[in-house]
Amino acid sequence: MASSSSSDSSAPQTPQIRKDSVKNRWVIFSPARAKRPSDFKSKTPINPNQQQQQCPFCIGHEHECAPEIFRVPPDNPDWKLRVIQNLYPALSRDIPAAEEVNNSDSGRVVVNGFGFHDVVIETPVHSVQLSDLSPREIGEVLVAHTRRIKQLMSSDSIKYVQVFKNHGASAGASMSHSHSQIMALPVVPPAVATRLGSMKEYFDQTGKCSVCESNSKDLLIDVSAHFISIVPFAATFPFEMWIIPLDHSSHFHELDSEKAVELGGLLKLVLRKMSLQLNNPPFNFMVQTSPLGDNASQLPYSHWFLQIVPQLSVVAGFEMGTGCYINPVFPEDAAKVLREVKVSPSE
Amino acid sequence: MASSSSSDSSAPQTPQIRKDSVKNRWVIFSPARAKRPSDFKSKTPINPNQQQQQCPFCIGHEHECAPEIFRVPPDNPDWKLRVIQNLYPALSRDIPAAEEVNNSDSGRVVVNGFGFHDVVIETPVHSVQLSDLSPREIGEVLVAHTRRIKQLMSSDSIKYVQVFKNHGASAGASMSHSHSQIMALPVVPPAVATRLGSMKEYFDQTGKCSVCESNSKDLLIDVSAHFISIVPFAATFPFEMWIIPLDHSSHFHELDSEKAVELGGLLKLVLRKMSLQLNNPPFNFMVQTSPLGDNASQLPYSHWFLQIVPQLSVVAGFEMGTGCYINPVFPEDAAKVLREVKVSPSE
Repeated sequence: MASSSSSDSSAPQTPQIRKDSVKNRWVIFSPARAKRPSDFKSKTPINPNQQQQQCPFCIGHEHECAPEIFRVPPDNPDWKLRVIQNLYPALSRDIPAAEEVNNSDSGRVVVNGFGFHDVVIETPVHSVQLSDLSPREIGEVLVAHTRRIKQLMSSDSIKYVQVFKNHGASAGASMSHSHSQIMALPVVPPAVATRLGSMKEYFDQTGKCSVCESNSKDLLIDVSAHFISIVPFAATFPFEMWIIPLDHSSHFHELDSEKAVELGGLLKLVLRKMSLQLNNPPFNFMVQTSPLGDNASQLPYSHWFLQIVPQLSVVAGFEMGTGCYINPVFPEDAAKVLREVKVSPSE
Repeated sequence: MASSSSSDSSAPQTPQIRKDSVKNRWVIFSPARAKRPSDFKSKTPINPNQQQQQCPFCIGHEHECAPEIFRVPPDNPDWKLRVIQNLYPALSRDIPAAEEVNNSDSGRVVVNGFGFHDVVIETPVHSVQLSDLSPREIGEVLVAHTRRIKQLMSSDSIKYVQVFKNHGASAGASMSHSHSQIMALPVVPPAVATRLGSMKEYFDQTGKCSVCESNSKDLLIDVSAHFISIVPFAATFPFEMWIIPLDHSSHFHELDSEKAVELGGLLKLVLRKMSLQLNNPPFNFMVQTSPLGDNASQLPYSHWFLQIVPQLSVVAGFEMGTGCYINPVFPEDAAKVLREVKVSPSE
């Protein structure tokens, strides 16, 4: 575990408002509200090895699930992971992907809820969490994400694919069996359009990629050959972390299987550090990638990354009203704490 | 209580994606995930009459609070409400309101965390909730908000004032004694800039105010002489409600004391209906108003409103990644349920 060391931190102790140049978002850093950075712990930790009877995601219960899309290895009853349809999809693959309907009399704009909503069952065993898997196994989960995105790209109506994971009921997981989700949307969602616009503006002004520029010594947590983990300069949430590929790349689905294993190793390290330091918090991770369908597979201003957010705070009236967030932990302090967490070697 | 009546609702039962023309936000309506609209209940209801020892907001404990700004009635130990500084402010009133600092070498944009963060103690009595107050008393709370905004406007550095209320710990309230908060910011926050831009675009295209246009029979909950309560056409959250002044008005702080009492009555009705129908959920309310400092006190495209959001769902990875929200209740269904809630007469 990290030693408590906020007292010798160089982070300022008066409030600051920082601009996230990737998301075009102001974040208020307000240490006066907080305990020391090393004192942040989840009050609702996840019990990592809870058992559950009658879980449809467990091996042997495949018939209780919605249809399978593919499994790894293929055609093998002893599968390691499965990609299936969501039994309760938020979008429907069975309705037409209609154009935008703008009822100008009423000013109401509506689109058919066409889209795909899939689930990746990351392990056949209920008690195994993503961070329990080996780097190679986590790499296989990430490759399953990229493979499914490439399938979904064949539909011209799909504009963006969001890969995400909710871990823990209070982070939105309705099933405790380790899984992630893939939603394919007929519109470019607003946060993605804002992010792309912000990154393009930064590129036009500076000639540089704002995500490449995020790499800085005071914000670094760990490095591997082709990836880094950092706390972003204007982190929206306390102990938010990004894993960024060092080679500039605009689309997550172009990740190859060798780098996926390396990314799996760094993701495992980040998740284990988060669990140790923050008392096994519920968390979300999101793949932040670029819209599909542009001819340019390599946009010079857009750079994909993994965003990992432990659930330590509540989104309340101020954030809902303004879209501004209040973060009680300066990113340099969070990065220092996470850098110093000692993880014992395993498999 | 409302009778269960979703079966005869005219709302469509396949998913729809609707655009909120006020907030420029896509929302996915996905009834397949949901129970019937009338079955939505909070799983974490608030105990309305909990007592607490040693609450600094209770009458007689004024010396335990940060400095007072004003009280109503003035100079009276038997006060009805107090406006005080927040003991743990997210922004500091004691540092310079510096200009934006753009360190172009690092691409880092930082502003001093200057601003004001105040608290309105809405009642001297711990067990009294906002919805227990009379329309006149709720009107006095709203007038205290407008009076404090007018004071804060005297600082040229303040660009926007956010009035909000967090009710219940899971909605962000750190104190259970009924209170609201006022934060004065040196920047126009991103959600406000987006809202203003979206309303201006709508006005430029149609010549109409998008909030005035929100008034529609199928979305209406209740009316009074100068206000309506509705469920917005593209509500972000299930059972989200707006109270809108019927007279086009861009700034909340121009509310007069007579209309404040009328608004207090409609807000009381909305809160009591929400509590009865949804099992006394934690909630947030936010005043959505216009930035300060523009010479035009009446912007033709901007119209203030109160947004009330019961906490019934979790913001998870999909919403964090995309800025798109999934709402399992069609607004027409929510409005019908809320229209039909019978509230017993009281004071």
